[in-house]
Amino acid sequence: MAAATGEPFGPPYRDASPEQVAEAARLAAADARAFRALPPEHRADFLDACAEEIEALGDALLELAARETGLTPARLAGERGRTCGQLRLFAELVRSGAALGARIASGPSGTDVRLRRTPLGPVAVFGAGNFPLAFSVAGGDTASALAAGCPVVVKAHPAHPGTGEAVARAVTAAAARTGVPAGVFSLLVGRDHEVGLALVADPRIAAVGFTGSRAGGLALVAAGQARPAPIPVHAEMSAVNPVVMLDGALTEPEPTAGGYVASLTSGAGQFCTNPGLLLLPAGPAGDAFLAAVARALKAVEGQVMLTPDIARAYTEGIRRWAAVPGVREAARGTAGPGPYAPAPAVLTCDAATYAAHEALTGEDFGAAGLVVRWSGTEELLRLLEGLEGQLTATLHGTDADRAAALGLLPVLEERAGRVLWGGWPTGVEVCHAMVHGGPWPATNSPATTSVGTLAVERWLRPVCYQSFPDALLPAELRDGTKP
Amino acid sequence: MAAATGEPFGPPYRDASPEQVAEAARLAAADARAFRALPPEHRADFLDACAEEIEALGDALLELAARETGLTPARLAGERGRTCGQLRLFAELVRSGAALGARIASGPSGTDVRLRRTPLGPVAVFGAGNFPLAFSVAGGDTASALAAGCPVVVKAHPAHPGTGEAVARAVTAAAARTGVPAGVFSLLVGRDHEVGLALVADPRIAAVGFTGSRAGGLALVAAGQARPAPIPVHAEMSAVNPVVMLDGALTEPEPTAGGYVASLTSGAGQFCTNPGLLLLPAGPAGDAFLAAVARALKAVEGQVMLTPDIARAYTEGIRRWAAVPGVREAARGTAGPGPYAPAPAVLTCDAATYAAHEALTGEDFGAAGLVVRWSGTEELLRLLEGLEGQLTATLHGTDADRAAALGLLPVLEERAGRVLWGGWPTGVEVCHAMVHGGPWPATNSPATTSVGTLAVERWLRPVCYQSFPDALLPAELRDGTKP
Repeated sequence: MAAATGEPFGPPYRDASPEQVAEAARLAAADARAFRALPPEHRADFLDACAEEIEALGDALLELAARETGLTPARLAGERGRTCGQLRLFAELVRSGAALGARIASGPSGTDVRLRRTPLGPVAVFGAGNFPLAFSVAGGDTASALAAGCPVVVKAHPAHPGTGEAVARAVTAAAARTGVPAGVFSLLVGRDHEVGLALVADPRIAAVGFTGSRAGGLALVAAGQARPAPIPVHAEMSAVNPVVMLDGALTEPEPTAGGYVASLTSGAGQFCTNPGLLLLPAGPAGDAFLAAVARALKAVEGQVMLTPDIARAYTEGIRRWAAVPGVREAARGTAGPGPYAPAPAVLTCDAATYAAHEALTGEDFGAAGLVVRWSGTEELLRLLEGLEGQLTATLHGTDADRAAALGLLPVLEERAGRVLWGGWPTGVEVCHAMVHGGPWPATNSPATTSVGTLAVERWLRPVCYQSFPDALLPAELRDGTKP
Repeated sequence: MAAATGEPFGPPYRDASPEQVAEAARLAAADARAFRALPPEHRADFLDACAEEIEALGDALLELAARETGLTPARLAGERGRTCGQLRLFAELVRSGAALGARIASGPSGTDVRLRRTPLGPVAVFGAGNFPLAFSVAGGDTASALAAGCPVVVKAHPAHPGTGEAVARAVTAAAARTGVPAGVFSLLVGRDHEVGLALVADPRIAAVGFTGSRAGGLALVAAGQARPAPIPVHAEMSAVNPVVMLDGALTEPEPTAGGYVASLTSGAGQFCTNPGLLLLPAGPAGDAFLAAVARALKAVEGQVMLTPDIARAYTEGIRRWAAVPGVREAARGTAGPGPYAPAPAVLTCDAATYAAHEALTGEDFGAAGLVVRWSGTEELLRLLEGLEGQLTATLHGTDADRAAALGLLPVLEERAGRVLWGGWPTGVEVCHAMVHGGPWPATNSPATTSVGTLAVERWLRPVCYQSFPDALLPAELRDGTKP
């Protein structure tokens, strides 16, 4: 379906049958042991080859993805870079052996005990609609699971089936080219939720990674728990990513207001890390900042959203916010071309109104910002203490605000997986120290991240070897290897 | 209640009221931030002080615990050593800073990103009945949660309330002596399951650790998921800990048979890691081994079990096994003093019988061993492939069995958290490389361990700091610190 018009194009993608779901899981399980046993170098070559094969798809991939998602080719080119970059980063991680967390110890009674992590088994991956490359078929969940040594069965996102198919063919080609068994990767199409639920219920699936809506995540978490043998389901769901403006950040409003508007509206605001909630001091300096936001936003045209349904839900969300007494519109851009490119908007209210209306606390997926005005540190702290778990929390200020920042940081650390000083939360950096996670309901799995190399730990479990002769130990735990 | 007689003694311990449960959680939450902010050295001193205060309780603690649990003072002295040893090991871990997993990286666009783990918040701990010290009030879950910087609320095990109270007083004294806020540790009494369920449901509790039965663990996992904001519940439940005898292990049956009987019957067999399932080759060498087991077991007297109910369930379990056609008794010890010290027993059957009867696959908690005879590697492999997740799996053999062992290891690694070459699974070694965990149903949380220093990771979550000025970073992430 073309995002801009809602009209179908391309081949009709048919939902996987229960037999096809079972077959994908069977193939994954059948090849799990062989994949696990591959030398790290071999697995890393496979990940590198995935990146190369995706790049080899060329601009046709970006054009197809743009048509399916409404995202711009420029944005998608960046996303392709990130996707291939993270595949290569995981390849490096595999080569380094660091993910195995090898430990060699002597117990209190002198017993030799050695530990290293081992893959959980076949992983089911549910990609996100808003990142058709970086959080989809060969996105972070797939890359980290393959890096862990787990076969992957992806349930394609129904909003970009063509893009999913193209990337899946690239991964399949990479597997064939590097001699990785074919069962290690499968793609299933499924508009119907039953396909995904059947996949999670399959006894051969050992773990699940999901990025998407809270409703979708909760359904899969429940399905994972309802199995005769429950499995871990890691779901990254939703957040409003609070940004706190401290006094010092308001002395020069223009550049910061522009940065906010850019972060809020980029990609039609369809980021997990979109700055949906801005906490702005009451008073003239805050007023001036908000006026600068209004000026900046006026010039921004709405972009085509991922699907017509998402565009409708976005507009409905703004209406719901605006209906709350005490909320007023502070800024609005213009609608973009066609029926599914609604105008970005910023609404505002005071802290008391925000605290009193639950309708204001949820995420409106898209370029919708809520600016809540606070008076005094105590009110700000109460606001922050009242927030649910978040993927990110951001502080804007200058050196003069450091004392205030130190007072807020303990609360922000409790609420979020990533804390920023300046900048905007949409600037996710895939690296060894990134965290894209957080307390409920940002995720159901607070001890993990779905971006960055630490993400590999979701698919591994520790196994220890007690009193083993060297020759029977896994290679990475033998004498003379450096843990 | 005295385990040996079932007669009550000591003060009547009354169940915590809902208000007391809420108060413990409130105090824990109120002091969580202050506890988290303590310098590592201070938190480590507290853990060391816990060990000292427990030791200062002297032999009175062992006598009380022996009366409550039926375990021998000698066994309890060993368990006290382990308990205090693991508190000190976690103190060392805290001092080293290793648990924080600090990472400093530069993102693809040059952004400074730094990560370290931070405590989840108040942890509810449910101790096990079979380890009144090492898996109870100040056991591994409590020690690892305190090491992580999480306040702890323990639900005392109803089978040893006096021991629990004594240890809780020691922890409280340690907190007072080292200036740790009092809310960091509380003990709740609860015979009624409602107490524990109310604790898990309290919105201030951030995570749960449990060691015990499958039914108990599943109830808490469900309660953790049913909250408006679900939390991680780590439950270590049950296992039969298969031991595979390879041909070479049978050439000198006596010492190995003796080791098996000792491991099976120690502490009345009430270990999570008890070798409940022995896989023995069919044929004369296996027959000779089983005869040696019978000779060794004959001399073993049953010990008083933890509670009269457990003794009854043990006897009933043996009866259930024996009722399966094809199962026969292979060895039996003698009953110990009083009504609650049933005789240890070993039953046996062939692989086909075992595979055909689900009644044989469960754990009979106590000194009950099932010996399953196998013929040929294929049958052995099928047996192992059919097993559920286990805490441990053990291979006995000689150098001549290494080829066979290499063929079995991939299956054993998939089934268990710890694999042993020789020795017996009850020999848990608390150290940096220990794993006491495993796939479902051994635990619900395969990526974790509840013993060894890796256990601390259950109570931590990663937080990353993006573009932070050095002065605002947590001390352990500032420039010049060594991650």
